[in-house]
Amino acid sequence: MTNPAQLITDMGNKARAAFLTLSGVTDAQKSTALISAARHLRAGAATILEANGRDMESARDRDLSDAMLDRLMIDESRLEAIAAAVENVAELPDPVGQIIDRSERPNGLMMERVRVPLGVIGIIYESRPNVTADAAALTLRSGNAVILRGGSEAIESNRAIFEAMTAGLAEEGLPENAIQLVQTTDRAAVGAMLKASGLIDIIIPRGGKSLVKRVQDEARVPVLAHLDGICHTYIGKDADQDKAIAIAVNAKMRRTGVCGAMETLLIDQDYPAPGPLLRALIDAGCEVRGDDMIMELDPRTVPADADDWNTEYLAPIVAAKMVRDMEEAVAHIAEHGSHHTDVIVTEDSAIADEFIRRADSAIVMHNASSQFADGGEFGLGAEIGISTGRLHARGPVALEGLTTYKWVVRGTGQVRP
Amino acid sequence: MTNPAQLITDMGNKARAAFLTLSGVTDAQKSTALISAARHLRAGAATILEANGRDMESARDRDLSDAMLDRLMIDESRLEAIAAAVENVAELPDPVGQIIDRSERPNGLMMERVRVPLGVIGIIYESRPNVTADAAALTLRSGNAVILRGGSEAIESNRAIFEAMTAGLAEEGLPENAIQLVQTTDRAAVGAMLKASGLIDIIIPRGGKSLVKRVQDEARVPVLAHLDGICHTYIGKDADQDKAIAIAVNAKMRRTGVCGAMETLLIDQDYPAPGPLLRALIDAGCEVRGDDMIMELDPRTVPADADDWNTEYLAPIVAAKMVRDMEEAVAHIAEHGSHHTDVIVTEDSAIADEFIRRADSAIVMHNASSQFADGGEFGLGAEIGISTGRLHARGPVALEGLTTYKWVVRGTGQVRP
Repeated sequence: MTNPAQLITDMGNKARAAFLTLSGVTDAQKSTALISAARHLRAGAATILEANGRDMESARDRDLSDAMLDRLMIDESRLEAIAAAVENVAELPDPVGQIIDRSERPNGLMMERVRVPLGVIGIIYESRPNVTADAAALTLRSGNAVILRGGSEAIESNRAIFEAMTAGLAEEGLPENAIQLVQTTDRAAVGAMLKASGLIDIIIPRGGKSLVKRVQDEARVPVLAHLDGICHTYIGKDADQDKAIAIAVNAKMRRTGVCGAMETLLIDQDYPAPGPLLRALIDAGCEVRGDDMIMELDPRTVPADADDWNTEYLAPIVAAKMVRDMEEAVAHIAEHGSHHTDVIVTEDSAIADEFIRRADSAIVMHNASSQFADGGEFGLGAEIGISTGRLHARGPVALEGLTTYKWVVRGTGQVRP
Repeated sequence: MTNPAQLITDMGNKARAAFLTLSGVTDAQKSTALISAARHLRAGAATILEANGRDMESARDRDLSDAMLDRLMIDESRLEAIAAAVENVAELPDPVGQIIDRSERPNGLMMERVRVPLGVIGIIYESRPNVTADAAALTLRSGNAVILRGGSEAIESNRAIFEAMTAGLAEEGLPENAIQLVQTTDRAAVGAMLKASGLIDIIIPRGGKSLVKRVQDEARVPVLAHLDGICHTYIGKDADQDKAIAIAVNAKMRRTGVCGAMETLLIDQDYPAPGPLLRALIDAGCEVRGDDMIMELDPRTVPADADDWNTEYLAPIVAAKMVRDMEEAVAHIAEHGSHHTDVIVTEDSAIADEFIRRADSAIVMHNASSQFADGGEFGLGAEIGISTGRLHARGPVALEGLTTYKWVVRGTGQVRP
């Protein structure tokens, strides 16, 4: 058996070669290949469901939790959703070749910045086998080669989906190595991917916090990800009371397990109706952990300790704090936030603009629920992840975040004096 | 004495605080502060030249080379150029606050991507003290805080320039810690900067190859840089012969020590006049190291060995090779290039477009000299460096490359269904 480092080097070299070939492929070819891949996913339903059945069986033998089994499971309707998502990506506008800007220099040189694919992308993910199709489709649509490494519990399902995808590519004459799947379950392969500088251009982890943390800690290759979503909602003194209640309850309670869920509620001390706001949250089933001023407002609140301000609950719990003013809200977010999504609720647009300028988050919202933090809701048509890093791409990332640019200089024989 | 790791942590924390304060500063304030800094540079001429005199004296005692002494030296006209460059940056358009794109969603949410500063930037450089002013001006203009770490041989000059710059900031009420200088010459401070994840957002090395290599190898913080500039010029079969000669000679010989200098010449085997092209280069004083087919064309050529295709000479030497066609030229560049600047000379615009699409370089040029690879020539008004990395910013980088974006979502109370 090949050692994992050698395996990843070989796959990286094949990916780079495929990437070079892809640069000669048209938008239409990439799109058609994905539609063909979706067809192969549907045609291969029996094989895919059977492979998934084997994964489910081993997972039950290993006593995986119901939540994990549910993430792993594929049935006919889920497979149809996977195929439809691939077709959806095929229809998204191709960012490659877009001219970002153009200017002519006095010497007649024409300078253009043109969008090009990033290169070779590594995706490291856990149990959901739909990521195999989804990530492969997004990376291919944007002209990249991809190396996929899914969870060992989903290996059979991933392999079956992967084979349908590459059959689609082959049918349209695209390089099959544009999509590769790491077929060993040896965890050392992940380590090798994380260190494959020069072969893999960026790693995108998809999964729980422990996976993301390991990737961020060990990677020598740049990582696009978010570790925490400690999202704040600040209720300004001039907030509309109905909006404040609707937004806070939705931001916390619509789905508590998503990264855009509110984890900390900051209430301006001059906001006139904090009581009804807390009541609405508690009535909706939320535990409110407050500072002293909050605790005085409702006997059902419980005391917050220092850790609460740094905690991503992903549960019906919120930390709540009274702040003097917007300035203190921004300072609290700077100290405790995770640069994901932070919200101000106010009818004062000057204060809103100042908050928007000062809050150093990938997404800053005014009068909206932080649960909108999602590529689909942003109109990106899809999402490969949300980035809380500052470089390259920030917030929800879809096709454009999987591209870079090159400078194209068009001359007529100019030489530099 | 503080240990270097603690020193960098302290400076990083001060820089982050200054960065937060800077987010409340207007374009006009940043610009005025730089004009004020330029005034302080001129007013402090005696102090700066005296400090530089001390550096020059120690450098002579340590027998530094004439080239290094020249890089280190500041006289009145060089100081005037440094001050004028700071004023020039003050007049560049501020990228911060620019709206990159905007769209309205069906639910009425308005999505904007707005340019914001990157954060805290670390600059690690060698003997040229002008970088102290130059890099500080560019980072401040784009709203960032900066930690500067210059070469030990320039410490007195750097300190004097740094003090003039921060005096300018203080005069306009800007946070002085927006610009900080590492004042120890302990090299461990560089190591600490390279590992300061979470405190420093990006490191930009400015200097020779050994500095850049150390930074790239050791950094845990992202690095914006180029290591090599192995630039190719491919003479297509339909190249105009006069343009081919003018471009090749200029690309190689105008200045041989710059990163945009041509290092490899690829000649299409169907180009009808390779002899005069080689003759022009040799007559201009260039050594031509060729493959067998090149060697047959001129007795003054010498044989190239395998290393020549991977060498950045930075000298009047060029490696020259006959290629079958554009395809082979692109493959050669993919194998041996450094993703910096590559050029095609041809009158066939279809072939030019194909080359532009296929050559995976930060800068791809058609019918122009690779020596134009420079931020000033690109109309950026300045340059903090050239990046051969693929993420974030590519090619010549000025103010825009020192920014990122945030998503601003403007609502009227929307909650997610």
